[in-house]
Amino acid sequence: MNLQTIADDIVRELQPRLGEGKVADYIPELAKVDPNQFGIAIATVDGKTYHAGDAETHFSIQSISKVFMLTLALGKVGEAIWKRVGREPSGSSFNSIVQLEHEHGIPRNPFINAGAIVVTDIVLAGHAPREAIGEFLRFMHFIANDETLSIDEKVAQSEQRTGFRNFALANFMRGFRNIHHPVDHVLGVYFHQCALMMNCVQLAHAGLYLANHGTNPLTGFSVVSPRRARRINAMMLTCGHYDGSGDFAFRVGLPGKSGVGGGILAVAPGKASMAVWSPGLDATGNPALGSVALEMLAARTGWSVFAG
Amino acid sequence: MNLQTIADDIVRELQPRLGEGKVADYIPELAKVDPNQFGIAIATVDGKTYHAGDAETHFSIQSISKVFMLTLALGKVGEAIWKRVGREPSGSSFNSIVQLEHEHGIPRNPFINAGAIVVTDIVLAGHAPREAIGEFLRFMHFIANDETLSIDEKVAQSEQRTGFRNFALANFMRGFRNIHHPVDHVLGVYFHQCALMMNCVQLAHAGLYLANHGTNPLTGFSVVSPRRARRINAMMLTCGHYDGSGDFAFRVGLPGKSGVGGGILAVAPGKASMAVWSPGLDATGNPALGSVALEMLAARTGWSVFAG
Amino acid sequence: MNLQTIADDIVRELQPRLGEGKVADYIPELAKVDPNQFGIAIATVDGKTYHAGDAETHFSIQSISKVFMLTLALGKVGEAIWKRVGREPSGSSFNSIVQLEHEHGIPRNPFINAGAIVVTDIVLAGHAPREAIGEFLRFMHFIANDETLSIDEKVAQSEQRTGFRNFALANFMRGFRNIHHPVDHVLGVYFHQCALMMNCVQLAHAGLYLANHGTNPLTGFSVVSPRRARRINAMMLTCGHYDGSGDFAFRVGLPGKSGVGGGILAVAPGKASMAVWSPGLDATGNPALGSVALEMLAARTGWSVFAG
Amino acid sequence: MNLQTIADDIVRELQPRLGEGKVADYIPELAKVDPNQFGIAIATVDGKTYHAGDAETHFSIQSISKVFMLTLALGKVGEAIWKRVGREPSGSSFNSIVQLEHEHGIPRNPFINAGAIVVTDIVLAGHAPREAIGEFLRFMHFIANDETLSIDEKVAQSEQRTGFRNFALANFMRGFRNIHHPVDHVLGVYFHQCALMMNCVQLAHAGLYLANHGTNPLTGFSVVSPRRARRINAMMLTCGHYDGSGDFAFRVGLPGKSGVGGGILAVAPGKASMAVWSPGLDATGNPALGSVALEMLAARTGWSVFAG
Repeated sequence: MNLQTIADDIVRELQPRLGEGKVADYIPELAKVDPNQFGIAIATVDGKTYHAGDAETHFSIQSISKVFMLTLALGKVGEAIWKRVGREPSGSSFNSIVQLEHEHGIPRNPFINAGAIVVTDIVLAGHAPREAIGEFLRFMHFIANDETLSIDEKVAQSEQRTGFRNFALANFMRGFRNIHHPVDHVLGVYFHQCALMMNCVQLAHAGLYLANHGTNPLTGFSVVSPRRARRINAMMLTCGHYDGSGDFAFRVGLPGKSGVGGGILAVAPGKASMAVWSPGLDATGNPALGSVALEMLAARTGWSVFAG
Repeated sequence: MNLQTIADDIVRELQPRLGEGKVADYIPELAKVDPNQFGIAIATVDGKTYHAGDAETHFSIQSISKVFMLTLALGKVGEAIWKRVGREPSGSSFNSIVQLEHEHGIPRNPFINAGAIVVTDIVLAGHAPREAIGEFLRFMHFIANDETLSIDEKVAQSEQRTGFRNFALANFMRGFRNIHHPVDHVLGVYFHQCALMMNCVQLAHAGLYLANHGTNPLTGFSVVSPRRARRINAMMLTCGHYDGSGDFAFRVGLPGKSGVGGGILAVAPGKASMAVWSPGLDATGNPALGSVALEMLAARTGWSVFAG
Repeated sequence: MNLQTIADDIVRELQPRLGEGKVADYIPELAKVDPNQFGIAIATVDGKTYHAGDAETHFSIQSISKVFMLTLALGKVGEAIWKRVGREPSGSSFNSIVQLEHEHGIPRNPFINAGAIVVTDIVLAGHAPREAIGEFLRFMHFIANDETLSIDEKVAQSEQRTGFRNFALANFMRGFRNIHHPVDHVLGVYFHQCALMMNCVQLAHAGLYLANHGTNPLTGFSVVSPRRARRINAMMLTCGHYDGSGDFAFRVGLPGKSGVGGGILAVAPGKASMAVWSPGLDATGNPALGSVALEMLAARTGWSVFAG
Repeated sequence: MNLQTIADDIVRELQPRLGEGKVADYIPELAKVDPNQFGIAIATVDGKTYHAGDAETHFSIQSISKVFMLTLALGKVGEAIWKRVGREPSGSSFNSIVQLEHEHGIPRNPFINAGAIVVTDIVLAGHAPREAIGEFLRFMHFIANDETLSIDEKVAQSEQRTGFRNFALANFMRGFRNIHHPVDHVLGVYFHQCALMMNCVQLAHAGLYLANHGTNPLTGFSVVSPRRARRINAMMLTCGHYDGSGDFAFRVGLPGKSGVGGGILAVAPGKASMAVWSPGLDATGNPALGSVALEMLAARTGWSVFAG
């Protein structure tokens, strides 16, 4: 199995489909991105990295940051997090508020917006917003082993000005006392974590700890325990693509987390961490070509967790 | 790793907790079962079987039958099935009707009651109810490699008399033309498939094709293609425990399907098929001790699909 | 104020709009009715009756029967009825099941299908279905002072064969033990009460007790107490047009109850009982021209209860 | 019929029940009010005023302001308002957000919080918040014929700090572009309108235009057309008590609008405007004793609009 060939083939085969889907336009800065791009990177647990296409172009990781903030929050408060957020698929879109009302301000899981906002509130504890953003950025430098990662302030500001639905979610949960800090502070951090810029190679490296029992094989640094890595993977599989999670599991068979910037981080436990990116989104708000690429990759590598 | 020892240990360690949970009482016949029972069986892809506790006591498989009927229906109509039933976690309880109204009679997945009733309607096509029941039974004989399996007519009748919610679901979907046969026929078959009696050993054997790329390693017979086996596993993981599916994935990390009779079928792809049984159910209607046992089993074997 | 002139004018002015709306097609027998018909009748509490257009053509009263069955049920069990059905507007369509799941099988009010089915179950107590139908028919003869009223068996059979949604509602509530009789019995009565044939004149006469403090001024017979008449009127105003009730109150300002056969019974307390009929329905399932006619009538008579 | 005697009797008969219900505690300033108070005032269209109990104690009118702001908004944009807010009962609690998601940011009616916030947004058009508050206050001086009415700044500030649910609703609708001004501005006005202090006598006078075809009989000033007065009354009846509107119509039979400060304004068209006040609220957030008092008043006067 030649992973470089597989990556190259996927890029070539998807070439005619570039531009499929619809670039997220509810964050004005994101709407400016050229849709005709596609990148893929594969980082294996034995330390090799393969990439093809626009794998070194930076993009806004958006909701993929939810995986990393969850990792940070679990490090801070451990399993106590589950008192404030569930771990069930929501069956709803990424920004739905209906379930929150029926379930008294407890979001279904940490990978929908409401749940991620609670996670951010947890990470914020005892910090000024700027410090929490700094902590997140240092954590990303650490797990990606790359000090150059930075946040696109214009994207953060753009969402700050237009993210009314997130303000609604945060205020709603604050009314249920499930947000402890001022909404402006929490969302200030949230919009910045989402505005982190990464390319596919960096993202694949950052996710390696999830593929390798909690430890980054490139640096040897332990990020989480093996058990926690398993659990984060489980949650990515059941909840990582909003109301498209079942379909992603069905077609791809790997834990994955999507972002409206067009990126997906996927994990083949024991084997590799992968990142794909293409800006166009499908009807569930998940990257259109990215899912197709990962379906091809999983089929060609046999890495589906459901194959054995 | 000595699987017999692991099975024996689990039985011994769970001894003090026998009777936990609440036996399903909405089907009167099921309410009569002695709650102080627990069985476990492990069938590996290399042809060995291990069991402990009440692993040879027969119980009503109930919703575990949904996995087998889905397999049958896929064999009949292939991927066309997905026009009539989705493949997303529902985020709702096993017998919820709310989502059906919002989504015009298309159930979220084949493992909630509404979805399974549609699958039964598909299997029923061109048959009298009695023939469809016969076909299901022969299929179970085939995959379990056991001609003694039979249906408990009293359980089937009991649910026929009291399963008002299922009549509601079926009529509701018939109103949307997503049930094509008379409701009485469809539910007649449905209640009979649920009333199949199996023990843990038989159930573990019946599930082996899912652990072994679609082929039963004991008989060498191919049941489904490797790809279809992966996909059924994926759906069991995301949807197999109703609104407790996320928690099961988080704690156990294996595809699994529960039944209100207290059984769970779980699959470790490439390794083994497992069945546990204990009648008491938790708040989500899933077997209480069964989930605990599988969590212990997955931890001790390292079989979680999220470990690698 | 010349009521005959008003009625004639309305018929004439609506002439160009005959056929507006969409005839109910989910009950096959109803779909056969010629849409180009309109009738109106006004029966005043001082004993006069005015009518115009197709006011002597019989039509299926459908859900208007809910008012009369509620009256019957209140006579049998009194205020105990409110333990099994609410008295709030549902904010949902006539056949919605969502609210029933959230509120554990207690329908919002007696004028949506679910609530009316509970009312029928109450009237059925201690009777065979045939007897309950007989009792309803005798009650209608009594309040309309007309022994010729009869049920169209073909319409009843047509709905029996196709009313899957009502079977869903009834079974659903039976699962919550809020239906006490076999679903077939309850719906057998329900479909027959809906299939009563009346014309506008008969219907206006039948509703007179609601306009006259509970007593039919034509016969002098007391049907209900003044207080009960007020309360039935209140419920017609808040709940009589499903999720179009607010709009009807806003535009017409009179208690009213619609049926998918195209009829509306409206009450001007202290003044008159009115019936209009035209088969075409609007998007909420309420008679399109009927609402317009009553809006004209209320404006020209000044009978809105909100005018004073 | 001696209205003074009726008012006195009601005060006396309710004396033993003072303190029933639960004072609103989600707005801290309101939680400080002594619950053992009850006042009633009746202003007839022939210019007389009767009052008893604590009818001259000022309280926070809260949601009763929604009636007056709707009147103002209708004066500004007329029936165009119904493009942005519905006129159907919501079947939900006063601050529910579920329906908003299902219906794309269009609130069901102007008397639930979401709808009233849209109405405030309409009144705000072309104004600074301070000017809009001033306009509302002048309008209240005009219709109550009382220049002393003022806003309790402490209550407004208290809600500004704690009204997270209203911030959620407003941001949610802004996301659907159904709020046009900055959320802080709209809610700044909204919290101030709610914080208007009135006593029962003032409130009864302010509502007289609704009882008298749109014209205040005390001053002779026309506020709205007769048709518009009827329509506002209709909406008060169907929607004025949130998910307790049906019950209020059933028991009292008068258009009414409640506030969480404990007040209710009720209208007997053609006869009188009434205000009652007692701080304790029932489970639907409506004044507990106030509803009882109006039920007594309606029964003794025969003023139910459903009596005729």
